[in-house]
Amino acid sequence: MKIVKQIILPVLAVIVLTACGDKQQAASSDEAVATQTFKWKMVTSWPKNFPGLGLAPEKFAQYVSEMSNGRLQVQVFGAGELVPGFEVFDAVSQGTVQMGHSGPYYWKGKIPASPIFGAMPFGMTATELNAWLHYGGGLELWQQLYKPFGIIPLAGGNSGAQFAGWFKKEINTIDDLKGLKMRIPGIGGEVLQRAGGVPINLPGGEIFSALQSGAIDGTEWVGPYNDLAFGFYQAAEYYYSSVWHEPGTALEFLINEKAFNELPKDLQKIVTVAARAVNEDTLDEYNARNNNAMKQLIEKHNVQIKELPAPVLAELKRFSDEVIAEQVAADEGFAKVWASYSAFLADIRDYHNKTLKPYFENR
Amino acid sequence: MKIVKQIILPVLAVIVLTACGDKQQAASSDEAVATQTFKWKMVTSWPKNFPGLGLAPEKFAQYVSEMSNGRLQVQVFGAGELVPGFEVFDAVSQGTVQMGHSGPYYWKGKIPASPIFGAMPFGMTATELNAWLHYGGGLELWQQLYKPFGIIPLAGGNSGAQFAGWFKKEINTIDDLKGLKMRIPGIGGEVLQRAGGVPINLPGGEIFSALQSGAIDGTEWVGPYNDLAFGFYQAAEYYYSSVWHEPGTALEFLINEKAFNELPKDLQKIVTVAARAVNEDTLDEYNARNNNAMKQLIEKHNVQIKELPAPVLAELKRFSDEVIAEQVAADEGFAKVWASYSAFLADIRDYHNKTLKPYFENR
Repeated sequence: MKIVKQIILPVLAVIVLTACGDKQQAASSDEAVATQTFKWKMVTSWPKNFPGLGLAPEKFAQYVSEMSNGRLQVQVFGAGELVPGFEVFDAVSQGTVQMGHSGPYYWKGKIPASPIFGAMPFGMTATELNAWLHYGGGLELWQQLYKPFGIIPLAGGNSGAQFAGWFKKEINTIDDLKGLKMRIPGIGGEVLQRAGGVPINLPGGEIFSALQSGAIDGTEWVGPYNDLAFGFYQAAEYYYSSVWHEPGTALEFLINEKAFNELPKDLQKIVTVAARAVNEDTLDEYNARNNNAMKQLIEKHNVQIKELPAPVLAELKRFSDEVIAEQVAADEGFAKVWASYSAFLADIRDYHNKTLKPYFENR
Repeated sequence: MKIVKQIILPVLAVIVLTACGDKQQAASSDEAVATQTFKWKMVTSWPKNFPGLGLAPEKFAQYVSEMSNGRLQVQVFGAGELVPGFEVFDAVSQGTVQMGHSGPYYWKGKIPASPIFGAMPFGMTATELNAWLHYGGGLELWQQLYKPFGIIPLAGGNSGAQFAGWFKKEINTIDDLKGLKMRIPGIGGEVLQRAGGVPINLPGGEIFSALQSGAIDGTEWVGPYNDLAFGFYQAAEYYYSSVWHEPGTALEFLINEKAFNELPKDLQKIVTVAARAVNEDTLDEYNARNNNAMKQLIEKHNVQIKELPAPVLAELKRFSDEVIAEQVAADEGFAKVWASYSAFLADIRDYHNKTLKPYFENR
């Protein structure tokens, strides 16, 4: 059988390779595209699995994993697990991680216009903001502003109309805000400063101890659903329901542009559509959960829900207009985004003044 | 070389098959799952590509096709192209097509509770309804009700707060509704009947000619964005902006249950997440487009926008309560869904009375 060993076996080997080589190669090349797995990390500014805020990134990860049949897996990290809550933007920008979930107003030191995409005092409600972002040119402006940082932002949930917050004393006149140290981010913080207060920016996880120790005299956070979870009622007596500084607060998904561009087209679409689905789902969650949480605060924890007096709100509105005018004068990016936002707001406010406003009064 | 032909070639063939058989079989079986293409048909109750209503199913088809890399393709048909607008439910139920896009109140003859998932007079707004559907048990109840028909419903967009509609004469007192023939579906139609009017149900595409010919004296449809597209201003003089019968109208995706169950898990998830993304996108579209359309109606077409007098609204509210009480008494399914809906509404109305209502007044 020398002939077998010396001639036929090598030939046989060639035949074996030829016989199934082409097909296998084609199959495994297709397979490579279809089964290449991407493992992403997403850092967030919230405690892991925190109601609403912290569930939005988890839902996103789940949707994406299921829709892609595991081809894109996103591991979610709470604030401080991988990077601190306020370093989410930098981590995504530098490509340390592929994604982040946070709030746009946290980056106003870097990008003065960023708070406009989050929430503006006396500005748009959640649904109005969503309409501007997706049908009024807002998202394009947002993506232009983050582009120099290599980040693609997408709307990442909205926590709805936010309460004015928790205070250790009653707020009866605008002067009661003088000297008040309050945790309040974004343009709302600038307005407080104009009223003589001291705005302080703290990640969610650090607010309770600051309030309890007296390092701050008051705080806004989100609304009953989230505020109950943090137990603020144990540290401050008065809870003001009045909506003024954040009438509808957008969260954001931050995506490293390079990582996004490396995905095949179907996974890119899965990412953007999942973000959009989470955007509504989070607002639904807040709208459904806030009221029961408010009841618990009142009935179980004896919290007094109060309203800011109309003259205080009118003063805050006047200060807001001043602060915004200054920002428009100081920063070209702010001016450009504000022009789009304020025109859209004027229109939709007119429309809702004819529809939802009287409806809320009549029903 | 007889040895080669007689012994070695057959052996070689076995070796070739053994060498690559297992892997190839595994690969092509995976491939079969990953590349099996599903071609679905979706019938709708709207003119093809009609603004808002007709774009929602097109967006859905596009999202699904891109996310699945073409593995699930959905062809969309306008009303009357494959089946008439009001036969969408039956076509999906019978499996003639795999999907439909329509409005739940169209099926109240078949399922008395179905209008509750669409819109209820003096009921929930769009965001309130979304919260109830997705976090208040609404969607589960909806799916239970459609299950005997082999249909899975999903929220399929919301057209927001709807105008009271177009009238050929002014409505100054409740008596002006007596004898009025008006196109108005769902529970709103029952309320009109209670007020002495004659509710008529017509698919969108048939309203204009009915209004122009005088077959009807008035019509509601959606709001400025859609009403402008149908040109109603050419057939009726008065346009009432007051929101009462449909404070936030949900559309629906109808999915044939058997067809859905035949999809692999990843495509099932792609279908549900795409529907959710379209649900918000459609509301965004309406919120963004309604106001400009209203301006055009006023400035270009000299339409008078009017409000229903408060006593008329109060009477309509009283009639609504009566109609709903009767439906609760008459139908077990209605009673069950209404119990859930009305409890959620009471809660979220309280909450919005503390937040959005004063905000609309103060901003």
